[in-house]
Amino acid sequence: MSEILVTDGAASSTAAHHGYTPEKQAYLRRLRLIEGQARGVARMVENDEYCIDVLTQISAVTSALKAVSMGLLEDHLEHCVVNAAREGGQVAEEKMHEAMQAIRRLAK
Amino acid sequence: MSEILVTDGAASSTAAHHGYTPEKQAYLRRLRLIEGQARGVARMVENDEYCIDVLTQISAVTSALKAVSMGLLEDHLEHCVVNAAREGGQVAEEKMHEAMQAIRRLAK
Amino acid sequence: MSEILVTDGAASSTAAHHGYTPEKQAYLRRLRLIEGQARGVARMVENDEYCIDVLTQISAVTSALKAVSMGLLEDHLEHCVVNAAREGGQVAEEKMHEAMQAIRRLAK
Amino acid sequence: MSEILVTDGAASSTAAHHGYTPEKQAYLRRLRLIEGQARGVARMVENDEYCIDVLTQISAVTSALKAVSMGLLEDHLEHCVVNAAREGGQVAEEKMHEAMQAIRRLAK
Repeated sequence: MSEILVTDGAASSTAAHHGYTPEKQAYLRRLRLIEGQARGVARMVENDEYCIDVLTQISAVTSALKAVSMGLLEDHLEHCVVNAAREGGQVAEEKMHEAMQAIRRLAK
Repeated sequence: MSEILVTDGAASSTAAHHGYTPEKQAYLRRLRLIEGQARGVARMVENDEYCIDVLTQISAVTSALKAVSMGLLEDHLEHCVVNAAREGGQVAEEKMHEAMQAIRRLAK
Repeated sequence: MSEILVTDGAASSTAAHHGYTPEKQAYLRRLRLIEGQARGVARMVENDEYCIDVLTQISAVTSALKAVSMGLLEDHLEHCVVNAAREGGQVAEEKMHEAMQAIRRLAK
Repeated sequence: MSEILVTDGAASSTAAHHGYTPEKQAYLRRLRLIEGQARGVARMVENDEYCIDVLTQISAVTSALKAVSMGLLEDHLEHCVVNAAREGGQVAEEKMHEAMQAIRRLAK
């Protein structure tokens, strides 16, 4: 219960730049909230809380994860994939195909 | 609405007994794995990993949460709700209605 | 395109009675609307309408189907399953297990 | 790969050309099957078939619709959106944003 998020002090100056990079700190905050929510679910089970209340809390975690996924996907499509398409060649179709696989997983 | 569901005659003096109680330790293990997975997603973003890989990992967390939800719901329906129905009266419909709201949230 | 719904004029006087029976006519109306919506999607593709508009219409059909499913499931749980639980024996657990399989399919 | 999409100021006199056009007949066949499945669900309710069997059939229709949606979305992204990105300007982001709204609806 006392785990500390790896903060990776030595982020390289050459860190890859992705669609989500400008919003990285906001994503990290949201993910830490989600991690805390997941810990909260475990605590509810630990404390023998009522099944339906546990399910409600899990639904909240799932919704928060879906919102993060949709944000990351949007950033990816609007930046990485659009840029790949502008560069031309096979890469754009490949990027789009790869994104499509992610969308299929998200829509399951 | 009297919290101690089920009739289960031998409810411990220390804790409510729910449908998931016999599997409580297994659920706790699964939830801690999920918490670790959520932390792993934050670490991936911290390390600027590729968007699609982050999405894949979030899908894994979501699937794991859904599996836990389905297990908890099954335990709840097969024990708490079935027992409420056996006791008769309004309680069964109320329990089922409450479960149905949880199912609607899960199926969103 | 001119198919006519089987109306099964000779519904037996001993027709099985299910959770949804009291609402049968309402369900039939909703399902005929859904059938019409599905036909409308085919017409949109036939007429080369814009992909995104076709997707929007398919999402509407899917939402309508999900609403019908949730209604049928609720009727089933609140009547068939509750009654089975009252009768006692193995049947209640079996009914609930069967319902749970349906819920898993719906939540996919 | 050079189809004239979007912007289609110059929509052909015969028909708009969309990402799904090359597969139009296959999509129409699939949509007619789905329409028939929807009709079959209504028939099941008309005939008082068992709730769980109706739910199973609705799940099959929903899965078939989702498969069509995913196919249409993939065609749209890999052709319309990639082409828009190649043309440059604001259009690519707008197309992608529009597609993203469709994805959010599909992932609900």
